[in-house]
Amino acid sequence: MNKEIGKNIYFDVDEFIPQHSVDCVIFGFDNQELKILLLKYKFGGFWTLPGGFIKKDEDMDNAAQRLLKERSGLDNVFLKQFYSFGNASRNFLTENVSKKRWEKENLVLVSKKFIEWINKRFITTGYFAMIDIRKSAPKPDIFSEKCEWIPVKKIPQLIYDHNKIIDKALEQLRIQLNYLPISINVLPNMFTMKQLQKLYEEILNKKLERSNFQRKMLRLGIFIRLEKQFTGAANKAPYMYRFNKEKYEEIIKRGIGFSY
Amino acid sequence: MNKEIGKNIYFDVDEFIPQHSVDCVIFGFDNQELKILLLKYKFGGFWTLPGGFIKKDEDMDNAAQRLLKERSGLDNVFLKQFYSFGNASRNFLTENVSKKRWEKENLVLVSKKFIEWINKRFITTGYFAMIDIRKSAPKPDIFSEKCEWIPVKKIPQLIYDHNKIIDKALEQLRIQLNYLPISINVLPNMFTMKQLQKLYEEILNKKLERSNFQRKMLRLGIFIRLEKQFTGAANKAPYMYRFNKEKYEEIIKRGIGFSY
Repeated sequence: MNKEIGKNIYFDVDEFIPQHSVDCVIFGFDNQELKILLLKYKFGGFWTLPGGFIKKDEDMDNAAQRLLKERSGLDNVFLKQFYSFGNASRNFLTENVSKKRWEKENLVLVSKKFIEWINKRFITTGYFAMIDIRKSAPKPDIFSEKCEWIPVKKIPQLIYDHNKIIDKALEQLRIQLNYLPISINVLPNMFTMKQLQKLYEEILNKKLERSNFQRKMLRLGIFIRLEKQFTGAANKAPYMYRFNKEKYEEIIKRGIGFSY
Repeated sequence: MNKEIGKNIYFDVDEFIPQHSVDCVIFGFDNQELKILLLKYKFGGFWTLPGGFIKKDEDMDNAAQRLLKERSGLDNVFLKQFYSFGNASRNFLTENVSKKRWEKENLVLVSKKFIEWINKRFITTGYFAMIDIRKSAPKPDIFSEKCEWIPVKKIPQLIYDHNKIIDKALEQLRIQLNYLPISINVLPNMFTMKQLQKLYEEILNKKLERSNFQRKMLRLGIFIRLEKQFTGAANKAPYMYRFNKEKYEEIIKRGIGFSY
């Protein structure tokens, strides 16, 4: 993102498509909780999804990639578009940021032209991804004081309708589990069935029955059970699993939903 | 849509969000073929999906409804957003309509301001629906010479990337069949299993095995088999079915995909 904001950062709105933005919902799992990557703005203290604006000559998919990188440092994330939010009320002024506060805190920071530009109604296109928290090293951009993984169950009030965008992303994730297994990217290389179940429970937002879940999962044929390491208390250690990548690719193509 | 185009139709671009449109892919089934509703423009003879622009104070979902009605006469259609197309190359001039032809055929019809406005790169959001062809009475708008149901397998070259939009809508429809039964709106009140199979085959673009298909469909418990009418040749007449709407609503909520 360019340069004005502050005193020496200039953001040229003419470089971007007006009234359209993209927002990224990045999911991670820390073995206990499903989390989402959020930024906290320096000015105003607002929490937000990483996102921003599309350059006039830039593919929207590329804009999402670029913005995720610029705003959180995350690179090479497999982003998938899931929905565009087009309500006429999508506007800083009508959503949960008060006009007064926005003007007070921002007019000193950015140009009047920018304020006018950003205070219009915006359509935003949502992208989501699941990534391995352990392999990510998010860092805030110059606008933000923090870039953090926040548990889905503890998401604060966000700017605009970003809370609704997260709800929709979760809804899409749940629908996806009706015809695809979980993303291979979100789990560590080795995991237990208990961890896998916890991840599904977090997404589906309900408790699952252990033996039924394991039977269904193992029947998919995409998991390899690893030999137990001898630890002296081996019997108590749970089995570890990893994905069989070849079988996983096959089943992704075929799908696990209703077949005809 | 407003008034300029021709001599007495004036279209005020300032009423609309710049660089964003919506397009509708309306599917119907005539018992043999899956069809899509298309318009043929008077000027240029270009074929197009029914679509257009979003008013500045209008929800995008409402814009899709309004545009479908204005352009094809179809009302009360359950439209579902399926994807936004954001490639930087989405532009009349770079897609399959030649600049020369567009300018030649249109500068006499519409204002220079409109040409400038529409010749920018546009993001478009696609909506789709399945409706009963027999209950529809499409009629072309003032810009169009025809509004017709065209078989999916015989779609002509369309303006912009509208052929790609149709491909994506079909892809989404196929994915949907992995976790939901077919839309209740697309079939007549009574139908045979053969018709149902033909509809699935058209969407999935592959032949299905008859007895396997019927067994799986009937097992869903959402179809009611009707008594055969005595015709003198009753044995040869196939069974007719209708939806059990109560059971259908139940299964739509539960889904028919992979369950946990």
